[in-house]
Order: sequence, then C-alpha cells, then structure tokens
Amino acid sequence: MIESKENKKIKYIKRLRENKFMKEEKKFVVEGDHLVKEAYSAGILLETFSVKEVSYGVLNNLITNNIMANISTLKSKPDVIAICKFMDENEKLGDKIIILDNVQDPGNIGTIIRSARAFNINNVVLGLNCASKYNDKLIRASEGMIFKQSVLIKELKYFIPYLKGLGYDVYGTDVSDGIDIRKVSKKRKIALVMGNEGSGVSSDVKALLDKNVYIKTSSDCESLNVAAAASILMYEVAKGDE
Amino acid sequence: MIESKENKKIKYIKRLRENKFMKEEKKFVVEGDHLVKEAYSAGILLETFSVKEVSYGVLNNLITNNIMANISTLKSKPDVIAICKFMDENEKLGDKIIILDNVQDPGNIGTIIRSARAFNINNVVLGLNCASKYNDKLIRASEGMIFKQSVLIKELKYFIPYLKGLGYDVYGTDVSDGIDIRKVSKKRKIALVMGNEGSGVSSDVKALLDKNVYIKTSSDCESLNVAAAASILMYEVAKGDE
Repeated sequence: MIESKENKKIKYIKRLRENKFMKEEKKFVVEGDHLVKEAYSAGILLETFSVKEVSYGVLNNLITNNIMANISTLKSKPDVIAICKFMDENEKLGDKIIILDNVQDPGNIGTIIRSARAFNINNVVLGLNCASKYNDKLIRASEGMIFKQSVLIKELKYFIPYLKGLGYDVYGTDVSDGIDIRKVSKKRKIALVMGNEGSGVSSDVKALLDKNVYIKTSSDCESLNVAAAASILMYEVAKGDE
Repeated sequence: MIESKENKKIKYIKRLRENKFMKEEKKFVVEGDHLVKEAYSAGILLETFSVKEVSYGVLNNLITNNIMANISTLKSKPDVIAICKFMDENEKLGDKIIILDNVQDPGNIGTIIRSARAFNINNVVLGLNCASKYNDKLIRASEGMIFKQSVLIKELKYFIPYLKGLGYDVYGTDVSDGIDIRKVSKKRKIALVMGNEGSGVSSDVKALLDKNVYIKTSSDCESLNVAAAASILMYEVAKGDE
C-alpha cells in the first residue's frame, strides 16, 4: 500500500501531467474504470493505481484515498488511475479526413474525435499547434473514442499539399464564404479543415486551400462552436450525396 | 480607484458568483469587452468595473489590476467586468423548441444556445435540474447568444404536457430507438428533449413522451456529446423536410 506522496511512483505519475515530460516518456495517464478498460482493450495499459483490489492484467499498486486525491485531477475521485503508453497510430489514410488547425480547447478536440468515430471519419489529423492529443480533458471528452479512432499529428503545411497530391478535395471552413456542405460531392476523397475557436483557419493554412464549405445558419448567429460545426459537417459527409 | 478587496462593491460582485445569492439578487456577472457590449445592447447592464477608462453609459468603477485579478474567473484577465440584471424573458413560444433535461455542463448548454440561435430555434427551455442559466461558463460558451435567444426555465413535468396540449410533437432523444431525424416532419410544431450527459433523458420525463428521434451513427460509437447531438438535430429541423 502506497501511503506517501514522496513515493517515487507517485511523483512519476504526477509529472506525467506535464506536457513536456509526457512527450519525453511517451506515456500518459487515464482515470476511472471506463477509460482504464478502454486503454486495456487498446493494448496500451502499463500499470494501474487503485484504492481497492482490481485486476486489469497489469501491475497494480494499491494506494490510499489520500494519495488518490493527490494524483487525480477529477472532482469526484476515481477508484483507479492508470499509466498508458502512447498509441501506435495506423497511418493509413481513408477517404474521409478531418483536420484541426490550432484548435486549442481539449474538450472540443475530444468531442470532435467522438463525433468522427460516430460518423465513420477515417482519420482525425491534429496540426502541431493543437492541444495535446493525450491531454486528460481531451481523452475524457472523447469518451474513450481516442482509443478507437485514428488520430494523427502532422505538420499541416506539408500534409495538406500531400493530400491534394493524392486527389483529396481539401476544404477550409468559413462562416459563409464557400460551398454549402449539402452541395459538396461526398463520393470524392474529402478532407475538412477546422480552425481555431476564436480566429478560424490560420492564414498560412488558408493559403494552401482552394475552397471553403459552410453550414447554412441564420444571420443572427453565423458562427458555431467548432465541435458543433465539425459534428454537423461530418454528419453530412457520412450521409453522402442527397 | 478601488484598491481594496474589502471594498463593499468588490465583496458584492464576488458574492454574485454564488448561485444562491445571484438568484436572490437577480443579478449576474459578465467579463470582457465583447460580453459587456452584448449585455449593454440587451439593456441589462447595471454597472461596470474596469482597469482603464471605459464608457458603456452606466456607472463605471476604476479598479486596480490586483482587484481585477481578484474578481475575475478568467485565466487571461479582462479589462472590464460588469454586473447585469436578469433578463426579462419573452415567454412567447415559437414552432421550434429545444428542451434540456438535467444537462449539467454549462459549456454544453451555452453551445446549444449558440447553435439554437444559428438555426432559428425559437425557444431553449431549461428544466429546473439544469446548470444555472447565468453561469459564467455558460454565458461565455454561448458567445453572447444568451442575450439574443429566448431561454426559459420551466418545470418539465408540467411544461411538456402543456406543449402536447398545444399540438407540439414532443420528441425524446435516444441513441437508436425511435425515428431517424431526417424522417421527421419539420413542418409541424416540434419540441426536442435532450437529456443528461451521462444518463440521457430522465425516466420521469421519458414517461411523458410518446416518441424518440435519433441520429444515424456507426455501431462503433452510438452516442454523441449532447451539444453536438443537439446541434445536428437543430440543423436538421432548420433545414426542413427533404
């Protein structure tokens, strides 16, 4: 039973909350039975920490409730926390791709990953300027779909031209300038680029794109939350041509 | 220039963060130039607090940066914070209504209000068990649409039968059981009920409903984030019959 905050393993799991350390170690933390099970199914579970006996088939460390309160970032403390290794991503590109350029809110990215899985989008691509893929809020917002969805990290200034070379229609998104998403041919290979919550698609990325799609909205409120907009666009893509 | 945390007004604005006090006083707080302007346009601005001269046409109190850091809940501190009075809601019901039953995340509710305005939904109705309409995160997530959208608070066990009496089709939402939203007649008076993030529509409310709608998704991921799902449903309602 680990009772001390000074325990080496406890210090280690807490440091894994730091972005830089997480990347160096190629490990991240998940909390709660649901996500720990999903991580186990994905084959990336390394070690668990729990307040009561559990058996996930990896080394478990029993810890006190105080230690759990110390290492958990959740308001209502879970029974189990786990260290996982970064996923080996399947780099295979499918016909439907969503690209996030400088999306900063981990909750938005997680929600988009969840909707992407729901609408059979093959790949979610995060630009280098997005929030970290392994951010704990992102993983929770994805409802575990981060473990089932291809999520790639790419430098967009190279990746977008590469996609165009492969014959993808790469669309930017704009509140009104462009083609109504309902009119876009869904039979082709499509990549949609969603931009930052405040400022939209960055000018560097815009310069790489020939066309935009938009969602028809009222003039009272032309812009939507980025995860809401992405979900509607992916829903339309999944629906196919009308 | 107010410099002391012990100043009566400073203590007052901080207490307005408490749900109970906010309701008693029928006042709430907004932060940042964008929302303060929207509150002004809505005619509910009472008094501002700022670190530099501003002129919103109401009493302004100059405060130090330290005091701003003390009363603001934002990471990056705004130049201005305001006290507003609760809005007088237009109780007039339109043909398209979205009802939230026990939706707890203020960000989700704010996002839904924003999408509701974008898709010309007449009324957003919050059950008594939802997060507070005047929660600061909700207001920020709504991007100021809280000031432009009818948002009513109702006891759903009375309000839903009332709507049915008025001839509305009141639909629950379920991951798969029900009618595909694309097949629902949009010409009729429609109310959609969205449920809690974890547990969906509550059993009490379900008992009042005759039918559900669903969004077609992959079997890998049947459930969507509630704001994403609501946005897609409202988008379909706005689109009309196919």
